[in-house]
Amino acid sequence: MKKNNLLIVVSGPAGSGKGTVLKELLAMSDDFAISVSATTRQPRPGEVDGVNYFYITREEFEENIKNDTLIEYTQYCGNYYGTINSKVSEMLESKNVILEIEVEGAMNVKRKFPDALLILLLPPDYKTLESRLRGRGTETDEVIKARLEQSKNELACFEEYDYVVINENEGARDAALDILNITKSEIKRTSRRLEVKEKFYE
Amino acid sequence: MKKNNLLIVVSGPAGSGKGTVLKELLAMSDDFAISVSATTRQPRPGEVDGVNYFYITREEFEENIKNDTLIEYTQYCGNYYGTINSKVSEMLESKNVILEIEVEGAMNVKRKFPDALLILLLPPDYKTLESRLRGRGTETDEVIKARLEQSKNELACFEEYDYVVINENEGARDAALDILNITKSEIKRTSRRLEVKEKFYE
Repeated sequence: MKKNNLLIVVSGPAGSGKGTVLKELLAMSDDFAISVSATTRQPRPGEVDGVNYFYITREEFEENIKNDTLIEYTQYCGNYYGTINSKVSEMLESKNVILEIEVEGAMNVKRKFPDALLILLLPPDYKTLESRLRGRGTETDEVIKARLEQSKNELACFEEYDYVVINENEGARDAALDILNITKSEIKRTSRRLEVKEKFYE
Repeated sequence: MKKNNLLIVVSGPAGSGKGTVLKELLAMSDDFAISVSATTRQPRPGEVDGVNYFYITREEFEENIKNDTLIEYTQYCGNYYGTINSKVSEMLESKNVILEIEVEGAMNVKRKFPDALLILLLPPDYKTLESRLRGRGTETDEVIKARLEQSKNELACFEEYDYVVINENEGARDAALDILNITKSEIKRTSRRLEVKEKFYE
């Protein structure tokens, strides 16, 4: 079933609970792996190369850009972040690979890999999103407002995603199950199973 | 969730085990109902109006054709068979409605209702299909050959279906579960959940 493994993009605004949901998903199934990004940023204490990120030099990163060997990349605070094609291909040999990236990256992946599965994770509504962000108690009012504003930008691409999964309060396990079921269904799409047709014409 | 109920077309060649799989599906979930067709054929002993078919006159049927109130229809052995729009709409208020129809009807449904979900049920391969048909022991060689030939015609429309579900030997329950999961996933498609987006712009 190797060739039926999927490239899955999971996006969601801050407060959607992406991290928790994906953790639940990995705990409930061995069929998924989360892609590790490459970055030019220095590793922070405790971070491990190949686990948190692949730490590469600016020259190496720009070589990847030049050779078009990145699935997507972006710059943030003067550093590059991106997903290296070959790393994902390797993982796809044995697992469904999840890219946890924001909307812009997601749209780039979709352009390059029309077969990728795009899932948008959302809290049940705007009020919940707001209260989750405030509940953290770690961000200033200004940051919260900026994040809420950004979440609206993300919703502007709603229809570009294939599926929307709602992460209800205390619902991370259900949301993870939804992603699991969506993946199981998707591999039954005729467009992903053309070999079945061939079997009948052998 | 009423408005999220789906119109589901299930097609499959003779020998695919459609009947058994759909029976399993109805047994495992209350969320599905099978559409009852209308026909101009006389009821056979034991058949019940509204259960096996809606028995209507030729005039009534042709009135339906004229008024474009049929989802699909066909003629067979001098009688009309078809699906009345309003009957399906009524059922959709409370359930996902399954149309168990052949390929041509399925394509007509797709044209009229692009939101309909099209599932093709298949045995694992051609040999299994053949041995299932022969195993029945009720059809002549000629009929079996004709059915096998017809199954190839059905496969010609493979890509027009959304999903392919394989009914393995002794696998009717698994195939029913597949249809159940596909339906659960489909209602999470962004194209079917545009109201979610609205919630965030209220």
